[in-house]
Amino acid sequence: MASKNKNIKKSASNKPVILVTNDDGITAPGIRSLVEAMSTLGEVVVVAPDSPQSGMGHAITIGKPLRLDKVEFHGEFLGWQCSGTPVDCVKLAVNKILHRKPDLCVSGINHGSNSSINVIYSGTMSAAMEGAIEGIPSIGFSLNNYSMEADFSACVHYARLISKNILTNGMPSETLLNVNFPDLPLKRIKGIKVCRQANAKWEEEFDERMDPRKRPYYWLTGKFKNYDKGNDTDEWALKNGFVSVVPVLFDFTAHHAFQQLNKLRWDV
Amino acid sequence: MASKNKNIKKSASNKPVILVTNDDGITAPGIRSLVEAMSTLGEVVVVAPDSPQSGMGHAITIGKPLRLDKVEFHGEFLGWQCSGTPVDCVKLAVNKILHRKPDLCVSGINHGSNSSINVIYSGTMSAAMEGAIEGIPSIGFSLNNYSMEADFSACVHYARLISKNILTNGMPSETLLNVNFPDLPLKRIKGIKVCRQANAKWEEEFDERMDPRKRPYYWLTGKFKNYDKGNDTDEWALKNGFVSVVPVLFDFTAHHAFQQLNKLRWDV
Repeated sequence: MASKNKNIKKSASNKPVILVTNDDGITAPGIRSLVEAMSTLGEVVVVAPDSPQSGMGHAITIGKPLRLDKVEFHGEFLGWQCSGTPVDCVKLAVNKILHRKPDLCVSGINHGSNSSINVIYSGTMSAAMEGAIEGIPSIGFSLNNYSMEADFSACVHYARLISKNILTNGMPSETLLNVNFPDLPLKRIKGIKVCRQANAKWEEEFDERMDPRKRPYYWLTGKFKNYDKGNDTDEWALKNGFVSVVPVLFDFTAHHAFQQLNKLRWDV
Repeated sequence: MASKNKNIKKSASNKPVILVTNDDGITAPGIRSLVEAMSTLGEVVVVAPDSPQSGMGHAITIGKPLRLDKVEFHGEFLGWQCSGTPVDCVKLAVNKILHRKPDLCVSGINHGSNSSINVIYSGTMSAAMEGAIEGIPSIGFSLNNYSMEADFSACVHYARLISKNILTNGMPSETLLNVNFPDLPLKRIKGIKVCRQANAKWEEEFDERMDPRKRPYYWLTGKFKNYDKGNDTDEWALKNGFVSVVPVLFDFTAHHAFQQLNKLRWDV
């Protein structure tokens, strides 16, 4: 149940407070499915972008002010919509709506996979990362299907299972989870695999076009290339019918590089 | 020297091709200083945003097309300006201007520090991360001074030294560098320290105001809090007069979390 209270300092029922956000915007079917999944686990508060924010990465809005408005639909209170990025939504939710850290922050369910390198570009995952930076157990969920008509029923089942597990057992320290669902009905999903991020990337291309004034413009396109042969990656898990769970860092220090860098003569 | 050729498939002089970008925009003093630093090391190609893009993180532009235009100033060719994000600039530079991977991608010099957690929000660092994902040795440079009148002369010296080192000795695998300069004259800088990312974060606040129509709006503000007592961090190095060099990952897998997650009962 979404709460109508503007100031939720404490859940009246002592149920966990669960912040739900996404990057596809508050009207996307994926976030409605995530609200459905969370509604049996706690008190759900939705703060999501007022427009699609896919590919926004960890952007924050500093050059202009933000708006935050209540959204109702057929008399039902859906949550708050924010004019900023997914990361802005998490910051505003904690600071201006909840006035406390929620017990869980979930983002998604994204329309499209955020496996492997997509974790870096994804607004969905950046919202979860912002939650984790703020010390909130945080999970991003994505379905490997870009369609607005995608079937999220299996995702609802697994998102609830994974979130319940984390609410009960806690999140590993300094970590968030990147969860991706294969586009399969519940019966055909083989289970959950804890995976590493596959070594894959986008080979970008640009579709160059000419405007009516003969000035060129460019649409970003690209091909996804998986260079990773491992069977312990998120890409492998998704291809083989598993839900992939990748634990994700927000300390980006490359400790493996210290030895090589310290061998260089840095003094002038 | 910035090249005037639109298609730089190969450096005519066999000098390294160095892509220079930033997030403060092509007219910022910091990028002019970085061009100056690189000009003795190779053939410099500038592709930078046409407007300030601070805090854009790893955002890419997928909902609208991009523009890419040549920029001249007093008859001198400065480079290309792009209507998109810092990450878009790197993608467009490789795909539409260079038609090859440059030998080095440098981003900055940012007006303001990108130490510790700022690596995640920074457009400067995201441009360097995009370069690294594409297999290009990549470095982001930032000065711990937000002013447009900051003195970049010491930065020019150290940016050249560090870049030359990497061009000569190569970059550790799967890594980029996050370089931050203390706001000190050259003589007072004690040298270079290879560091880890400090455990610090922004405690956000919002400045709530009322518009003339009595609708509230919010400006993101915040206080930077360093929770890290270590003397091996970038924050420590900057405070103690060193240039900090943090090797940065783009495989975000939290390997330390596997054991705890694999103990959970994931099967339904």
